[in-house]
Amino acid sequence: MVPKAIDLVEKFGAFQERWSPKIVARLNDYEIKLAKLEGEFVWHSHADTDELFFVLDGELTIEFREGPVRVAAGQMLVVPRGVEHRPIARGLVQAMLIEPSGVINTGDAGGELTAEYDDSLA
Amino acid sequence: MVPKAIDLVEKFGAFQERWSPKIVARLNDYEIKLAKLEGEFVWHSHADTDELFFVLDGELTIEFREGPVRVAAGQMLVVPRGVEHRPIARGLVQAMLIEPSGVINTGDAGGELTAEYDDSLA
Repeated sequence: MVPKAIDLVEKFGAFQERWSPKIVARLNDYEIKLAKLEGEFVWHSHADTDELFFVLDGELTIEFREGPVRVAAGQMLVVPRGVEHRPIARGLVQAMLIEPSGVINTGDAGGELTAEYDDSLA
Repeated sequence: MVPKAIDLVEKFGAFQERWSPKIVARLNDYEIKLAKLEGEFVWHSHADTDELFFVLDGELTIEFREGPVRVAAGQMLVVPRGVEHRPIARGLVQAMLIEPSGVINTGDAGGELTAEYDDSLA
């Protein structure tokens, strides 16, 4: 069976929820997720893994305890494991996230922004 | 230390070599690489890992033994482990590759298109 190309515009068009990453592809034991971000997320960290944010549209700010970093469209940032961070999107941001399978979006923080596992677009 | 945003346009501007992936970021035991592709690559496979191609500019064709798949800008494709493939770029293609650390571009095929490990842009 020939692998299929995955069109990101099409995938982003298929959902509107904010802070609810959708798995669109798998790479070994990693997941490629798309997310629409808008507003302020919660402070959290992931004890066991780095986390990659690749901003495809809009501008994301990621706050760290030492200060904020802006990540514009066409830029990526890797949050090292164990480092507290809080994503903030002043407007709508479309981003790709890459991390090992099973990582929860709110990490150690939990709470109402914790997203369900969603591979309906994979 | 606060992580830095990585600007892909800036990174692509820093090299011209074709078929010579440059590591720009690390994510746990994985590497994020940028590559400029132009012309025909060699048939090869990677026995131990899937390989992700994300086309950022141009249009890539990936040939499989069962037929070709076009991957346009804004599209990605995961080549499953062990599956023979041959990337072909009719014009210049700028792509992001994601795979575990140490994967060689020509896989099992080797030959003169085998690229040196290059993390000078990381």
